[in-house]
Parts: sequence; C-alpha cells; structure tokens
Amino acid sequence: MRLVKEVYEIAEKIKNMEIRGAGKIARSAALALQIQAEKSQAKNSDELWKELKEAAKLLHSTRPTAVSLPNALRYVMYRGKIAYQGGADLDQLKFIVINAAKEFIHNSEKAIERIAEFGAKRIEDGDVIMTHCHSKAAIGVMKKAWDEGKDIKVIVTETRPKWQGKLTARELAEYGIPVIYVVDSAARHYMKMTDKVVMGADSITANGAVINKIGTALIALTAKEHRVWVMIAAETYKFHPETMLGQLVEIEMRDPYEVIPKEELETWPKNIEVWNPAFDVTPAEYIDVIITEKGVIPPYAAIDILKEEFGWAFKYTEPWED
Amino acid sequence: MRLVKEVYEIAEKIKNMEIRGAGKIARSAALALQIQAEKSQAKNSDELWKELKEAAKLLHSTRPTAVSLPNALRYVMYRGKIAYQGGADLDQLKFIVINAAKEFIHNSEKAIERIAEFGAKRIEDGDVIMTHCHSKAAIGVMKKAWDEGKDIKVIVTETRPKWQGKLTARELAEYGIPVIYVVDSAARHYMKMTDKVVMGADSITANGAVINKIGTALIALTAKEHRVWVMIAAETYKFHPETMLGQLVEIEMRDPYEVIPKEELETWPKNIEVWNPAFDVTPAEYIDVIITEKGVIPPYAAIDILKEEFGWAFKYTEPWED
Ligand SMILES: Nc1ncnc2c1ncn2[C@@H]1O[C@H](COP(=O)(O)O)[C@@H](O)[C@H]1O
Ligand SMILES: Nc1ncnc2c1ncn2[C@@H]1O[C@H](COP(=O)(O)O)[C@@H](O)[C@H]1O
Repeated sequence: MRLVKEVYEIAEKIKNMEIRGAGKIARSAALALQIQAEKSQAKNSDELWKELKEAAKLLHSTRPTAVSLPNALRYVMYRGKIAYQGGADLDQLKFIVINAAKEFIHNSEKAIERIAEFGAKRIEDGDVIMTHCHSKAAIGVMKKAWDEGKDIKVIVTETRPKWQGKLTARELAEYGIPVIYVVDSAARHYMKMTDKVVMGADSITANGAVINKIGTALIALTAKEHRVWVMIAAETYKFHPETMLGQLVEIEMRDPYEVIPKEELETWPKNIEVWNPAFDVTPAEYIDVIITEKGVIPPYAAIDILKEEFGWAFKYTEPWED
Repeated sequence: MRLVKEVYEIAEKIKNMEIRGAGKIARSAALALQIQAEKSQAKNSDELWKELKEAAKLLHSTRPTAVSLPNALRYVMYRGKIAYQGGADLDQLKFIVINAAKEFIHNSEKAIERIAEFGAKRIEDGDVIMTHCHSKAAIGVMKKAWDEGKDIKVIVTETRPKWQGKLTARELAEYGIPVIYVVDSAARHYMKMTDKVVMGADSITANGAVINKIGTALIALTAKEHRVWVMIAAETYKFHPETMLGQLVEIEMRDPYEVIPKEELETWPKNIEVWNPAFDVTPAEYIDVIITEKGVIPPYAAIDILKEEFGWAFKYTEPWED
C-alpha cells in the first residue's frame, strides 16, 4: 500500500517544523487526510480505510505530544470510522472523510474570528484587561473589542523565561491599544485595577483544567481572589481527549539555558539546579468561562466538548487503531 | 548650635549611599546620636535635647522614605524624650541616650542571629523551602536550619526585574544547601512540593500587612491556598509606626529601564508604558508568623510591637519635633 506523496510531504514538514503553530499543524494534518481520500487508488472502502489509518498513524508520529495534531486526525478519522463501520461504500467513505477534513479546516480558520466575536461581547467600555504570554485567540478578543470602539487598556506580563509578553505588547500597541507592561510578579499588585483577565490555553482537560504558559495559574488565582473574571480563549482542538481516559497532560520541562544563559550557569555552584517548566495547570474553579468557537462555556462543560468532538467510543481505541 | 562632626559625616554617607542596607543605615543613625550625646558641649539638658533633636532631623532628612532610619531615631529619641520631659539632668539625659543607642545597635546586630534561631526551630528535617528575593534574615533562618543538620532544599525565585534570586541561590548553594532556581511564575507550580515559605520584609504595617519585593504577595497567596506556612523574617525596626497613624506605605515606582533596557524600550511603540513597582503588599491573613528578634508573633500582633517600640504617644509628634 502506498500513500499519496502529499501525505509524506506534509508529515515531513510537520516533523522538521516547517509547518508550526497549533492551528497550522492541525489544519495541515486534516488536509493530508483529505488529499489521501481524494487521490486514493483504492478499489473499495476496506482499502481506503486502511490507507487512511496508515496516513493518520504516520502524521500522528511526527509530533507525538502536541494536542492539536491528534485532534485534527481524530476529528476526521472518527467520522470516517463511524461511516466505515456502518457499511459505507468507497464513494460514501471518500465523501465523509473529505467533508470532515474540510469542515475541520474551515472551523479552525473561523475559530479565532468567532472566539474574538464572542469574547469581545464580554469586554466593556473602559475595561482594563490583563493577559499573559502571547495567545492569538486572546489577542483576537482584545482587538475585536477595540474595533468595536471600546476604550480598553491591556496589562501585559513579560512572561519569563521567553518574554512572549514583548510580542503581545507590541502587537496590541501597534494595533493602537494602550499597553501597560509589567514583570510577571506584578500580577497581584495590579489585579485591583484589572476588570477582566483574558488568556489562551495550550490544552484543556476533561475536568476543565487549563494547561497554559507557566504563570497562568498564579494570575487566575489572584483574579479569583479579586472576583475578576478569568476568560480563556481556546479553539476546541485544544481540548485534550486523552484526559477523558485519565491521562495526565505532560508538563514539558524545557532547557535551563532559557532561564540562565549557558555561560553564566556554568559559573554557578553545582548544587543549583535550574528547573524550567513550560506550563502550569489552572484548576477549573479559577476560570469563569472558556471561549471556544462553538460558544462560551463554563470550564466544567469541557467534557461536553470532548464527548461531542470525539465521542465516548474514543475511550477504547484511536480511530486509526484496530 | 553646632553638632559634632561625626553626625554630619554619617548623615552625608547615608545620603550618598556609602552607608546602605536597612540594618546598617539604622545602626549608623543610632551611633550618630550616641556620639552627639558623648561629645556634646551642652551645659544643661535643655541644650543637649535641642542638639539631639537637630541631629535627628538632619539624619531623618537623608533618606526620608526608608523605615529603618526613622525607626532607629525614634528608638533612641523616644527614650530621650521621656527622660527629658521627666526632668532628667544633663548627665542623666546623656546616659539614657547613649544607652538607648547602644541598646538599639546591639539589638539590631543580634536580631538576624536570633531570628535565625527562632525561625530554624520551625524548619523540619527534609523540608523544601521556597524563598523570594534576597533577605538576610530569611537566609539566616535557612543557614541555621542547615547548621543544625536539617536536610533542607530551597526553591529560589529569580526575582525580576533585578534578579536578586541569583544572589540568594549562590549564597545558599555556596553554604552547601541544594537549590532549585525557577522563574517567578513557577511559584504555584512548585507550591505542592513546598513545605514552608520563608521570606523577608521591607516594612510591616500596624495591621500586619507585609510590604516586600514585588511578587511576595503572589507567593503568599498560593502558599495559603496550599496550606503551606508563610514565615516572614523581619527585625522589629522594619515595623512601620506611621501606619498606626493611618499612613499608607509608599510603593516605590522604579525606573522602567530595570525591566527593559533603554535601547530596546526606545524602539517600542509609544503607547506601551512600562510600570516597575518595587514592592507589593501581602495581607496579614496570608501570613502564618512573623519572626522577629523579640519572638515569633502572629502578624496581627504587629500593633503590639509598634506600641511597645514607639508608644501611642508617637501618635502626636515625632520625638524630635515639638
Ligand atoms: N498534568 C495534569 N494533567 C491533567 N490534569 C491535571 C494535571 N495536573 C493537574 N490537573 C488537574 O488540574 C487541577 C489541578 O488543580 P490544583 O491541584 O489545584 O493545581 C485538577 O482538576 C487536576 O485534576
Ligand atoms: N500602601 C499600603 N500601606 C499600608 N498598608 C497597606 C497598603 N496597601 C495595602 N495595605 C494593607 O495591606 C492589606 C492589603 O490587602 P489586599 O487589599 O488584600 O492586598 C490590607 O490590610 C491593607 O490595609
């Protein structure tokens, strides 16, 4: 069995990071499955389903820890599996898979826009908003509120160790929005003047916990302490289905040299270890709403999103496994 | 009236920061009053009291916002005033003032040691301790626990923007203590593995709030959330008597270039402001104990320390004012 060359190409580009960013990776993976269905030489649905499973496994193996990539595969393959097991013929299976892939890509492209629309309704004229790190979805909400003529101001935390706050500050400021830039430690000091917190997510668990850039949980905690709403802007493919199976999300430990330059660290006593976790986990209870492209939900409804997107059936096997 | 030359010299050195650090400033100011009393040419207690008041005003004017400096002056001058108003003669007033100054200096020198002793008793073998910034008193507690053979480990936060965490990490590590160095934002992520939080204070208010390096309040908040004890190591001259009069402690706003280098900030859009508060305020409810050289107290007993050190009489005028 041979897969079409586009599948190998896309897999390679995801692997070597020519294609990167959660959204782009997810859309490219869906596109690969679509092309496989479109150009397949399969003579019946059994053959096509085999090819699709191979393609999905290959794509899945490229970046095994990211959540958006398997989610794109699941979205398409879950729908394909239902059809295949329900006795779809070749043309029906092709149609279902191509359609599911297009749907995923379309939803994903529109997601940021819709999140911005939904989120902006919850921003009021005169609001001071606090944000952390650099989230496309969160920034979308603020830009949209600004477009609507709301006079907002944004407190941006610098986001050590990699300073993503600088990107956010510049992007908002260049859009015209006034920005106050502070160190991460200042989050509580300025929470009293903050009206809303808007942040992104790397992934969201079955019980509504939000895995996001280290520091997110502290900001959410003090926001809750101040009765300031924490709004998490997140596309549905950030929801982590394996957490329905009890899986814990792995908190990536990154290079210590991101925190202290190598040359400097080498002069330090040997009994200092530098620990550099990329993410922390914010419990659902500190989050007011999660803003998805499907709608604004309480964090506790994460399970509903997961059930709808992936189904309980997912519990037993990945749709590309037997 | 002429003050002795040592008073002018010490005042000058405090002003130009040759003498710095809360402890040293306070002890030098007390010493200046002591020398004034010792070398005074005054012919009676009225003259001496006038000189002492002049000296106190001069010293007070050098660094008007620090709390340790006026506290040293108050300690000595309050005792002098009581004696003077009680009809002390020249020799009696000299004796009282010299004695009060020596007492202050002695107490101050012993304070760190005693705090270390008291604090170390609350550290248990195997404890993981989190600290923030660079506090001589807090470090004293950890070193003492280590000296006592307790196997501790310390999580040190880097303390943006001025990286005082580096000093703390090196100092502890060179003493032999294993250190884990993290960004400030990681405080909640590692609070679950933390047994005790030990931090210093810049000043402490009448109702037991702790003013300390920006970020302290966030760490205390998440420690409280985790039922981890927050222990504040602070000499009694860090207690801020003017807060008994309703005075708010001024939160020093420092140079934005500490956060972002000047050359970089100049390339940023003009609608980004960088705010750089040096301190934040931790409410008493997040603090388990304050460890002073007088003893371990609940934060709510700050008022008792203040009353004892400065008396209610302080409410009406500074002892060097009329
Ligand atoms: N690594 C992880 N993967 C998935 N969920 C997690 C993880 N760590 C914590 N959680 C969830 O996030 C919340 C953590 O709350 P807390 O222990 O208060 O920080 C709980 O709801 C946990 O179930
Ligand atoms: N600038 C300040 N000077 C003195 N006390 C303060 C100051 N800011 C806050 N406080 C006290 O510290 C606590 C602040 O608590 P919170 O408002 O929860 O941060 C309260 O007890 C206030 O009375």
